[in-house]
Amino acid sequence: MENLEALQKKIRDRIAELNFQQPPKNLYQPINYTVGLGGKRLRPALCLLACDMFSNASDRALEPAIGIEIFHNFTLLHDDIMDEAPIRRGKETVHKKWNANTAILSGDTMMALSYEYIMKAPENIRFEVFEIFNQTAIEVCEGQQYDMDFESSHDVTLDQYIEMIRLKTAVLLAGSLKIGALIGGSDGSSADILYKFGEQIGIAFQLKDDLLDAYSDADKFGKATGGDIVTNKKTFLYLKALTIAGQEDRKQLLSLYQSDKMDPNEKVMLVKTIFDKYDIQQHTENEIDRYYKLALMSLESLDIEEHRKTELLRFANQLKRREY
Amino acid sequence: MENLEALQKKIRDRIAELNFQQPPKNLYQPINYTVGLGGKRLRPALCLLACDMFSNASDRALEPAIGIEIFHNFTLLHDDIMDEAPIRRGKETVHKKWNANTAILSGDTMMALSYEYIMKAPENIRFEVFEIFNQTAIEVCEGQQYDMDFESSHDVTLDQYIEMIRLKTAVLLAGSLKIGALIGGSDGSSADILYKFGEQIGIAFQLKDDLLDAYSDADKFGKATGGDIVTNKKTFLYLKALTIAGQEDRKQLLSLYQSDKMDPNEKVMLVKTIFDKYDIQQHTENEIDRYYKLALMSLESLDIEEHRKTELLRFANQLKRREY
Repeated sequence: MENLEALQKKIRDRIAELNFQQPPKNLYQPINYTVGLGGKRLRPALCLLACDMFSNASDRALEPAIGIEIFHNFTLLHDDIMDEAPIRRGKETVHKKWNANTAILSGDTMMALSYEYIMKAPENIRFEVFEIFNQTAIEVCEGQQYDMDFESSHDVTLDQYIEMIRLKTAVLLAGSLKIGALIGGSDGSSADILYKFGEQIGIAFQLKDDLLDAYSDADKFGKATGGDIVTNKKTFLYLKALTIAGQEDRKQLLSLYQSDKMDPNEKVMLVKTIFDKYDIQQHTENEIDRYYKLALMSLESLDIEEHRKTELLRFANQLKRREY
Repeated sequence: MENLEALQKKIRDRIAELNFQQPPKNLYQPINYTVGLGGKRLRPALCLLACDMFSNASDRALEPAIGIEIFHNFTLLHDDIMDEAPIRRGKETVHKKWNANTAILSGDTMMALSYEYIMKAPENIRFEVFEIFNQTAIEVCEGQQYDMDFESSHDVTLDQYIEMIRLKTAVLLAGSLKIGALIGGSDGSSADILYKFGEQIGIAFQLKDDLLDAYSDADKFGKATGGDIVTNKKTFLYLKALTIAGQEDRKQLLSLYQSDKMDPNEKVMLVKTIFDKYDIQQHTENEIDRYYKLALMSLESLDIEEHRKTELLRFANQLKRREY
């Protein structure tokens, strides 16, 4: 078994070789820029890991894993236009560095390129891989739509929120694992268990992200604490607080989340005072723990030698413990 | 052999059945709206026609043909954002009726949906169909990029222009025919000949569009004559005129194409005076004729019973003769 770090390096090395030099350069330069921005390359590495678990031959999944990473980067590129985000991974976003039209069209091309790489899966499993990937791609779009819908909705439930992050974040982790497993030769039910694991750990991952945004060491996390609060983002913390807070605090929270003009530091302080009053940090940690444990149970139920699960277990633990 | 009109109706009927009712509705409503806007359904009908030519069983290609039409509508949707077009087929564009974010994301989802339908091709030929479609999708994006690049370029050549319209318009017609032929059971070289025919007729089609924009009965054509001139679009007519006009006229033409403030009617009149002086209408008709004849030669070289070519020949003649 290769460890996750080695597999991440394998992905980085393969991506370094991708260099779209064909014309038109105004189309392919932003693609090279986007794919080269870095990141943890977690999804494709998990794809390789799952393949390795069943085959000791992670390379079999290398090209489809690259397709997954290109797709992931495409979604970030288009999301950044929609969110008007100026910075991604410490660098200017494509729609800022070039323009929105370039970002739209380069993204479209990346989507087609991602299918090209996905379809390099071994022939015997190619169509199944395609079906998982395509379903995942559609669900990621649905998740992004819910995320945008929630911005202007005033009655988002916790269940709806979990469903949104499942679609927007978790299914791509899940699909990466399932695709890798199938390419590695796993049977369908093992692949489905890994999919479930990916969903559960993906939801835990996003909840942890919500938590760290409000409660973390800003230097480690790499962005200012409370960014979600300042932008009125309806995270798990906020929705949980609305569910359990008393009427007065609930009212104040709703009113704070309708203000755009307030001093950011004061706003974060006032919101977190309410959060703290209702132990929101603890509630969120409990929910993370719940999904984390579900993920571990999924992994336990997987019918494979125990030592083949070690690396995925270590990955789950890292995610849980991360402080940034 | 079914005739083209019958095949267009078959496509319209199948599209009428598509009705994405699943949530989130803010994602799928714009998709239903876009796919339902109408249009001639030419690409999918040609796909069925090519399939019919080799199999007498056009239905075999029905689902992939729908994938082609969804893809075509997706490109129009994203192009309309980039061009800031307010109207498409007489109705508000999605980014106007909803907003740009909705248009981006619904388009992305349509792209994934188009792959879903493409991959319903019969299993024995599925991967080949995918490869043609995916290559075509990438080339259409490249064509759109060149089209945008040309807006700010001052040294576009006629060859570059033809290559742009080949990518942006012709390859999807060509790919539709090739995919249909292969699903119908044609050999590779026959499919390649139909691809070539599609490219040639597609270029002729776009050149005819350029011509009709400047020289047509506005009532029949459905838009004001000279729209391309008013918006400084570097069409075949303009580029040809630059190539053959005397120095003074060339200068005047360049200067006219840099003015945005001029009275539109006066601008169209002045540009067309130069066009007329150099017989641009005739030159363009000659070029259309050249591509039309190349297409006919391709069709002649196709090794299939002559009566199986009749419908495609009739289609080519219709395109050539159209006055709107």
